[in-house]
Amino acid sequence: MGCLRGGEFGAAGARIMATKQNDAMSTLRIALAQTNTTVGDLDGNVATVMDFTRRAADSGAHLVAFGEMVLTGYPVEDLVFRESFVEASRHAVADLAAGLAAAGLGEIVVVVGYLDADGPARQGPDASRDVGPRDSLAVLHRGEVVTRYHKHHLPNYGVFDETRYFAPGNTLQVVRVGGVDIAFTVCEDIWQPGGPFAVAGRAGVGLVVNINASPYERNKDERRLPLIRRRAAEANATVAYVNIVGGQDELVFDGDSMIVAADGELMARAPQFDETLLVADLELPDAGEVSAVNGAAMSVEHTTVSSQPPPPLEKPVEAMLSKPMSDLAETWNALVVGLRDYVIKNNFPSVVFGLSGGIDSAVVAALAVDALGPDRVYAISMPSRYSSEHSRDDAADLARRTGLHYDTEPIQSVVDSVMAEVALSGVAVENLQSRVRGLILMALSNQHGHLVLAPGNKSEYAVGYSTLYGDSVGGYAPIKDVVKTLIFALARWRNAEAERLGQVPPIPENTIAKPPSAELRPDQVDTDSLPPYEVLDHIITGYVDNDAGRDELVDAGRDAAVVDRVLRLIDTAEYKRRQSAPGAKISGKSFGRDRRLPITNRFREGR
Amino acid sequence: MGCLRGGEFGAAGARIMATKQNDAMSTLRIALAQTNTTVGDLDGNVATVMDFTRRAADSGAHLVAFGEMVLTGYPVEDLVFRESFVEASRHAVADLAAGLAAAGLGEIVVVVGYLDADGPARQGPDASRDVGPRDSLAVLHRGEVVTRYHKHHLPNYGVFDETRYFAPGNTLQVVRVGGVDIAFTVCEDIWQPGGPFAVAGRAGVGLVVNINASPYERNKDERRLPLIRRRAAEANATVAYVNIVGGQDELVFDGDSMIVAADGELMARAPQFDETLLVADLELPDAGEVSAVNGAAMSVEHTTVSSQPPPPLEKPVEAMLSKPMSDLAETWNALVVGLRDYVIKNNFPSVVFGLSGGIDSAVVAALAVDALGPDRVYAISMPSRYSSEHSRDDAADLARRTGLHYDTEPIQSVVDSVMAEVALSGVAVENLQSRVRGLILMALSNQHGHLVLAPGNKSEYAVGYSTLYGDSVGGYAPIKDVVKTLIFALARWRNAEAERLGQVPPIPENTIAKPPSAELRPDQVDTDSLPPYEVLDHIITGYVDNDAGRDELVDAGRDAAVVDRVLRLIDTAEYKRRQSAPGAKISGKSFGRDRRLPITNRFREGR
Repeated sequence: MGCLRGGEFGAAGARIMATKQNDAMSTLRIALAQTNTTVGDLDGNVATVMDFTRRAADSGAHLVAFGEMVLTGYPVEDLVFRESFVEASRHAVADLAAGLAAAGLGEIVVVVGYLDADGPARQGPDASRDVGPRDSLAVLHRGEVVTRYHKHHLPNYGVFDETRYFAPGNTLQVVRVGGVDIAFTVCEDIWQPGGPFAVAGRAGVGLVVNINASPYERNKDERRLPLIRRRAAEANATVAYVNIVGGQDELVFDGDSMIVAADGELMARAPQFDETLLVADLELPDAGEVSAVNGAAMSVEHTTVSSQPPPPLEKPVEAMLSKPMSDLAETWNALVVGLRDYVIKNNFPSVVFGLSGGIDSAVVAALAVDALGPDRVYAISMPSRYSSEHSRDDAADLARRTGLHYDTEPIQSVVDSVMAEVALSGVAVENLQSRVRGLILMALSNQHGHLVLAPGNKSEYAVGYSTLYGDSVGGYAPIKDVVKTLIFALARWRNAEAERLGQVPPIPENTIAKPPSAELRPDQVDTDSLPPYEVLDHIITGYVDNDAGRDELVDAGRDAAVVDRVLRLIDTAEYKRRQSAPGAKISGKSFGRDRRLPITNRFREGR
Repeated sequence: MGCLRGGEFGAAGARIMATKQNDAMSTLRIALAQTNTTVGDLDGNVATVMDFTRRAADSGAHLVAFGEMVLTGYPVEDLVFRESFVEASRHAVADLAAGLAAAGLGEIVVVVGYLDADGPARQGPDASRDVGPRDSLAVLHRGEVVTRYHKHHLPNYGVFDETRYFAPGNTLQVVRVGGVDIAFTVCEDIWQPGGPFAVAGRAGVGLVVNINASPYERNKDERRLPLIRRRAAEANATVAYVNIVGGQDELVFDGDSMIVAADGELMARAPQFDETLLVADLELPDAGEVSAVNGAAMSVEHTTVSSQPPPPLEKPVEAMLSKPMSDLAETWNALVVGLRDYVIKNNFPSVVFGLSGGIDSAVVAALAVDALGPDRVYAISMPSRYSSEHSRDDAADLARRTGLHYDTEPIQSVVDSVMAEVALSGVAVENLQSRVRGLILMALSNQHGHLVLAPGNKSEYAVGYSTLYGDSVGGYAPIKDVVKTLIFALARWRNAEAERLGQVPPIPENTIAKPPSAELRPDQVDTDSLPPYEVLDHIITGYVDNDAGRDELVDAGRDAAVVDRVLRLIDTAEYKRRQSAPGAKISGKSFGRDRRLPITNRFREGR
């Protein structure tokens, strides 16, 4: 096998080399490495690539593909602007190529995502739009970088800021491996019709590899398969889609790597959230004669790794065909992974939080135990004079069910000592209780190194139903993007799942059944201040997730006065959200990078 | 005068209509309205435009230009995605046109920035890149919108996310007013050569109006004048540059509106930070015969408001030619304006903060008194057993000097009550003191409605030398982007300025002279934990503001061990910064929207 560089054509709209497929087919064994990367941990990420490449080679694969930016982690955000970081990434890819060859892994073709650059980053009005950092893919073989591809389509919506960082690519790379022409693309490229997939189709490739760092959101997996099918049809080629897994600050990557044939048949699918090596034998058309085709939308660069079909495989592999999880299972897993990876990747030994007996902290406790095991989880009951007996019982019950560390720190004496110094009344007293709890949790964190978890849910963050520096304290907010009605559904699902598996349900039934209360004054319940959660969550989803206006919400059948009150609460709580801890995004629009609103904002809907 | 619509040419690269200038000149009186806008307050912003238009008309001006997005405020961020908000902006511009005519202000040509849209916003992979919301300019005359221009160049770096929001314009608007052809542009358009200014030059216009919302940063005013001169030369036309003033969350707009002739002569300049109507008589070339020119980079649309030269002006105006402020004066004013507008635009009656006797809270106090007057400023001394006598004296001295409200709330009894409940030692005890202070300030805020000010400076935010939910509590952080060495320089400048004006210097000399200390344990000084501030601030500026790597900083002459320690501190404090209050940006790169780094990030320089 030689590494021959084929024809290169400069200008868009120019002729490209296309292979006329003949009827001969070869079988390539393709591996997709669905791995968990850590931002900035280049050594660790390279080690993971080495490990999975060895496993792929051992399985007999001809090619193994990893996710987008697998060497740097994703997203690296403004690290892009530091030349030392860009250099570290460029060195990592060169060192990886050499390291693979030195480890006897030079023959398998390895596809990795990394950060490259051909000029300074785009930081001001004078910066060039055409050069700069690139969201890149490298094809490695026999110790060398055979070719590089730069992502064409840069998402700049939602949580993505890629036009802030990257210059777009404008060339398609086609590499002949085992006689089959393979095109390479990165993430967003698959969302756009008429782009690299269309040109890959005109170039007559047999396979398009698409490497991703595609964050989870509810129901996104239901969009992926039809999308990949559309692109497979456009390219008239098999598509191998590989995504990373794991948590990174507000994002959770769910994997769901898969292979779809040109006719839309789902050939292989990896499980969500878990590190997996997905291996499949693909019958792909041999590249035939190469001839020029006019009028492609971009230039195409051909490279040859091996032009001869590989020898027949000794024993075919049966590709994994995982079933997608149910919506609730998937959401629960996303929350567990987000929490686990925040704790592990930031080197925290343990977590601590207030366990009130209410539904939110109970779900946080169950998630934490699922993520870390009970021995790394510390729950503190911090009763005041308004805490009910049943709340303390429910908290203790949960501790028994899950086996987490459980302790009690009464707050009344501290509250009284503040009241003795400062004259307070009403809401100031309610908030004081919450802030004393926050202060105790932070003191325990400082003393023992625990990460504090904030138990707020999306409904509370939306309307500001929380105390700043009180129940909002914490380095991570596991259920920040989960509305209250979904919290209840998840709690019920988790308990049912335990019963299905013959385990003890973690959440006491009374915690699920009783009306939610902050217990900051006598006989308080949430519905004293808020509409029923079914109504509230519907308005929140409309206004926050879908940018619906006031009239649209009222027309949808909601009471105008309730809508007006809720929107007012959402608008004026922006300052609290701005100081909140990160938490995993699971919805179409989470609070954080996903939704950027001014604090100073006098616009009020419906006036 | 008639409103005749001229030739319109569709395609880029096509012919445009250009006026061949003859030697005749007319004098137009041009007014630039440098106003303070509030995001979302469309009614209030329209009222301000009406008010300044009346003043401009009274001064005899033929045209008055306002800033970018003056009707909506700037930046409106994700409000762009709410159709109800876009509709409100579109209605505001139509209502304004009608309202001006109804108020007898129909003859003066009014130029305003606002939010327009010709399609849904760009929120996902399927969104169109060619239609969507626009950062627009409208020219109003006789109750109608005569023409609209959409900003061509969209900044997407630093604090700006404009490709997230807007579709770019691709047409240049030329309007004939008083026989003079005037082209219109928005903000970033002036930073790019070869864009609308170049085409305006080919179209032979006499004046280019550029409307801005250009945030302050130190030394930016020194870049503006040369920039405007370059574009005036490129357009071979006079350039009228108008910018807004005032604070909006993390941004302060400093005005500095000016008019520069084609030959580079500075004709008029408004003072920084203050609302101003800048009026100048400009001798501009009459537009002559119109003929077609080939090969422009964009299409040009001509409109005529009035083709005849105006009658000679009765009495010429002498244009204001303000001198730029000194660097320290300018910085102080930016901080005052940022703080004042955050308080006023968010409707807070007053501010409260801890006054320790140290330099940071003293500068915050002086800024607050300058921004709001002493009667809206509440300072609390919260001594613990480690607070020195001189600190309390210095705090009381400052209170006497400035006349702010001053009170004392000892914290020791509360600290003791927590220590009685939870076994704490070391840093946990230091942080506890700080958190009890935060808790007391928040209780006073809840009880009295004060906005809490956080006294942290940029050096502390950088290295995490603060207590989360302790001294970091607050809704606004006035000196967040000011490094410690600059804090001292500003304190000295403010005192000298007071002496120059024959007033009492606000900051006690001892506060400036003594070594900085957090006073959380006996005899503590900052240099126990940190390098001297001269060294620290130099490293921070290199690493944070300029993205220098570790080797670059060491090569610049810094001790390698010190650099390594400081970079490590900066990297690992990201989680604290993420939960911090907003504060005015004054540097090249502030913490906030300007610098976006992952919390979970294992990259360490120099490993």
